[in-house]
Amino acid sequence: MTFEILPIEGLPLFQKDDDLAGMLLAHLHTSQFELADGDIVAIAQKVISKVEGRLVDLDTVEPSAKAETLAAEVDKDPRIVELILQESTDIVRQKEGVLIVRHRLGHVGANAGIDQSNIHHSKDGSALLLPVDPDKSAADIQQRIASATGKRIGVLITDSANRPWRLGTVGIAIGASHMTVLDDRRGGFDLHGRELKITIINRADSIAAMATLAMGETDEKIPIVIVRGAQAGYTDQKTADMIRPLEDDLFR
Amino acid sequence: MTFEILPIEGLPLFQKDDDLAGMLLAHLHTSQFELADGDIVAIAQKVISKVEGRLVDLDTVEPSAKAETLAAEVDKDPRIVELILQESTDIVRQKEGVLIVRHRLGHVGANAGIDQSNIHHSKDGSALLLPVDPDKSAADIQQRIASATGKRIGVLITDSANRPWRLGTVGIAIGASHMTVLDDRRGGFDLHGRELKITIINRADSIAAMATLAMGETDEKIPIVIVRGAQAGYTDQKTADMIRPLEDDLFR
Repeated sequence: MTFEILPIEGLPLFQKDDDLAGMLLAHLHTSQFELADGDIVAIAQKVISKVEGRLVDLDTVEPSAKAETLAAEVDKDPRIVELILQESTDIVRQKEGVLIVRHRLGHVGANAGIDQSNIHHSKDGSALLLPVDPDKSAADIQQRIASATGKRIGVLITDSANRPWRLGTVGIAIGASHMTVLDDRRGGFDLHGRELKITIINRADSIAAMATLAMGETDEKIPIVIVRGAQAGYTDQKTADMIRPLEDDLFR
Repeated sequence: MTFEILPIEGLPLFQKDDDLAGMLLAHLHTSQFELADGDIVAIAQKVISKVEGRLVDLDTVEPSAKAETLAAEVDKDPRIVELILQESTDIVRQKEGVLIVRHRLGHVGANAGIDQSNIHHSKDGSALLLPVDPDKSAADIQQRIASATGKRIGVLITDSANRPWRLGTVGIAIGASHMTVLDDRRGGFDLHGRELKITIINRADSIAAMATLAMGETDEKIPIVIVRGAQAGYTDQKTADMIRPLEDDLFR
């Protein structure tokens, strides 16, 4: 089966309180782009965060004593460190310039996904936080698009992430609705009839990786792409389901 | 720009000493599939390992004392543990049933990439090791295909990997030739003209993730897919270039 990743070009820059689903539907209509059953609408976290008002003016942030201490240790802006602490449940590692934390959503990564690129900056600077509940954001958008178009589609919210041991960012899934997130093949068989014991395929992250590459990450202005042919699957799994349980985490 | 992932269907099962590049070229010719400039030929590690004779009969493996001890600690077959130790430079974590090691190629993951699914088993069982030098394997195949077709193509060797913190496997790149592995955007600018300080995009892993999903991982018999539209880039980077230097590794 052929997969296609179709970038949606010419979208406006999204801003706080914009109706993202409505604007996307209008744009698809104008550009005569027809969604198909099984399509996955992949949306960059950054635009979800923007429309949901997650842009923070740094002059409104009052660092705690803990944030001040930690900021001095790792040589970062104490206001950014304060936001990182508010957004995370656990500091996994710290080093000059880097805080690896467990985000309250469960994802482990650098600086709690807080981003300062491709956002409008106030005089004192700004920072963009992850959506409050990206699985819910995905579900809301999925419902709007599905009911407007009558198509069975999935929605995926992507972010770009650094990883241990490997250089360079890849896209990951931080929100999903009506698609297969984890494809559990345990109990199936391989080519030689040997039972598969451990094969769970992370479809959401795999699709997010390629979608994020198609979006570009700098100035391409393509925050939404359609992934066609990967078959959404239409399950009620969430990206929360892919977080490895803490007791199985070998890296605590 | 639209990406397409085109599975090559109907390939034979590859075996030791098969001429993979020659068989692929013949199959593309028969099925009238024309490669295009910029295409990336993504090949599953498993078939590279098979043709390169990396299948090991477990009855030929003599576990060392260290392997016996470690096997008892983590409750694994001592012969598999012996192979894991031979193939790795460092044990990162150990736990019942799992050895997370740094492979001699630099990749960190479970059981040194040694696989027992989708291979032919001898009476005592078999195990498939990673290719000796997958960047070189990719380069050899790239050269064969490029000179036979006259097309500017890249070659990517993919593997599926588990990751810390997240459930489910995703594809990663373990070999590459004549394509952009790391796309370094540092020094460029974002949408608002802010200089990008840390943006390096791992194109090889991003493409490997989607290619691996298209291959399937169980009984789909699609070990090779063509990734079109992602623009190979035609560099001399290798996957070895994406291994994070040990001194920057926060997880040692």
